[in-house]
Amino acid sequence: MKAWENNIRKISPYVPGEQPKDKDIIKLNTNENPYPPAPGVGKVLASMDADRLRLYPDPEVKALVHELANYYNLENDQVFVGVGSDDVLAVAFMTFFNSGKPILFPDITYSFYPVWCNLFKIPYKTPKLDGEFRMVPQDYYEENGGVVIANPNAPTSIYEDLTVLENIIQHNSDVIVIIDEAYIDFAGRSAVELVNQYDNLLVVQTFSKSRSMAGMRIGYAMGNSELIRAMNDVKYSFNSYTMNMPSILAGVEAVKDEEYFRESLAKIIETRQKAIEEFLSLGFSLPESKSNFVFVTHPKIPAKQIYEALKEQKIYVRYFDMPRINNYIRVTIGREDEMNRLFTFLKKYLENR
Amino acid sequence: MKAWENNIRKISPYVPGEQPKDKDIIKLNTNENPYPPAPGVGKVLASMDADRLRLYPDPEVKALVHELANYYNLENDQVFVGVGSDDVLAVAFMTFFNSGKPILFPDITYSFYPVWCNLFKIPYKTPKLDGEFRMVPQDYYEENGGVVIANPNAPTSIYEDLTVLENIIQHNSDVIVIIDEAYIDFAGRSAVELVNQYDNLLVVQTFSKSRSMAGMRIGYAMGNSELIRAMNDVKYSFNSYTMNMPSILAGVEAVKDEEYFRESLAKIIETRQKAIEEFLSLGFSLPESKSNFVFVTHPKIPAKQIYEALKEQKIYVRYFDMPRINNYIRVTIGREDEMNRLFTFLKKYLENR
Repeated sequence: MKAWENNIRKISPYVPGEQPKDKDIIKLNTNENPYPPAPGVGKVLASMDADRLRLYPDPEVKALVHELANYYNLENDQVFVGVGSDDVLAVAFMTFFNSGKPILFPDITYSFYPVWCNLFKIPYKTPKLDGEFRMVPQDYYEENGGVVIANPNAPTSIYEDLTVLENIIQHNSDVIVIIDEAYIDFAGRSAVELVNQYDNLLVVQTFSKSRSMAGMRIGYAMGNSELIRAMNDVKYSFNSYTMNMPSILAGVEAVKDEEYFRESLAKIIETRQKAIEEFLSLGFSLPESKSNFVFVTHPKIPAKQIYEALKEQKIYVRYFDMPRINNYIRVTIGREDEMNRLFTFLKKYLENR
Repeated sequence: MKAWENNIRKISPYVPGEQPKDKDIIKLNTNENPYPPAPGVGKVLASMDADRLRLYPDPEVKALVHELANYYNLENDQVFVGVGSDDVLAVAFMTFFNSGKPILFPDITYSFYPVWCNLFKIPYKTPKLDGEFRMVPQDYYEENGGVVIANPNAPTSIYEDLTVLENIIQHNSDVIVIIDEAYIDFAGRSAVELVNQYDNLLVVQTFSKSRSMAGMRIGYAMGNSELIRAMNDVKYSFNSYTMNMPSILAGVEAVKDEEYFRESLAKIIETRQKAIEEFLSLGFSLPESKSNFVFVTHPKIPAKQIYEALKEQKIYVRYFDMPRINNYIRVTIGREDEMNRLFTFLKKYLENR
């Protein structure tokens, strides 16, 4: 063994999610949006002056920060933009969770939280969701180094009411509470309305789901200006120019087109409602979904078998081989025709068992 | 003071470089390329299917990794791609410099090295460049936690011969040696030819300078497959999808167009030669530049005065108010007409003093 091998940072190797190339596949496995981004996004990219790429992009991402601030009725200095919400969350973890005390997040939630804790040497504790996968607010009232809550939660799809979150924020005025709202546009009221009231609150959102721009990598955080300044200081010290020119231009166009945004959300929510009814009629049960995916379990057939049977049909869904959730599959809400193919198969599959 | 303020990571706030909007300005301050990227870059972006942005990009960035591996005669598993070389270097620092021993880099070099050390709590020592701003190789033979060398160095513009670097690499077989080659295409032989010979060598390059794509944010590292795998493990654990779809497509096109690349390099090198002669004829002195910038000092007029006089003329260059280099200005090599305007002014300015 080489001496330098001892000093390589130990990370459990990550296996990237399946990104099949086969066009025939129905891809309901990574919660992507089945509809394209706003038409303005394609237009601004097609007409972009590529010669300008020779120059560094605006490190402050002012155009996009301003557009978002305007959209959410915030000041420019209350918005931080990064390369997807993973980048934004990682910067937030690095910036705020330095007390040495464990931070808290549910045992079943977004799988990157513990990974970032390990990477940045942040201790953490994971209070258990209850039997219905709901939060037990009291678990978050004990002394801690920070709180992170995905709302709606993944992979459970459950949305907790804003009053539940507000109680947790109030009980944790000494630490930063991050509400990770990747799926909020499919749900209900955002915690962003509490941002001016609680200076310890950071709300994180993304363009990857509701705005159909996973391929562009744009996420953002909203909070009081002191939090945003601290995150920018960390970001600038790491890499001043993270947002490339196409991202900035395309991001602005996406936010501008409110009508398209609302239409495409409405379509997904309508398809979700139908999908829930279909799943129920097939004997599945599921928590109430407020996301662009559902988390379903069948009383008779193990989830893993269903997952594999679907895969054989070129229908990709997500299965997590983890305690408490290994009898569930997570199914992204696709287009109507995709969901029809899914249910046509599932009906036949269940009849024959 | 709020309790949570105590646990914010302490970073000395960074002030982004001047990115003036005035089109009349001659921008010779951030070592950008004065020529546009390869024509294929604009074409691929203009014809890109924006609807595909709804999907996540390839987390392994296979298309671009393959194109680079092919270009440098390496295997695919010897190339790591990131969001600019700042991202690549930061990941490398995080991945390799965990011994607790100080890493070594020159006292005058790229200003982000000490910043990343502070961010990741890596101890460091900065051996002094000699009076001519050249490295003293013996300084890098003592026990250390790693070595980082920018070659050509910034802001000095000096290129060290590959034999000097090879000696340092050989003396440091127990640690990782990073050669940061942001400006190598304007210089001479790259350390990439040593990659298959020394498993402790990591060579980092960028699309921001020689390939005219600062606005796109693409950097890459080349080394033995074990180093690349370790960096990917860290990257994936931080953010699996850092490279957006436009970056991947545009990067591939840039690497493909060797002819355009060589032509635009040749133009800059020719302009650099003329600029050096002009500076010398005006009484400036400078180290031999092998970069797309020169680092000049005048025997009579303080650099800061020249910097300010140029700025008044809307000619932006870079001045570093730091020990040992505060009587120099760094001037990016621009287009011929931009350099002519610079020298026309400088001649008049120096005559009137």
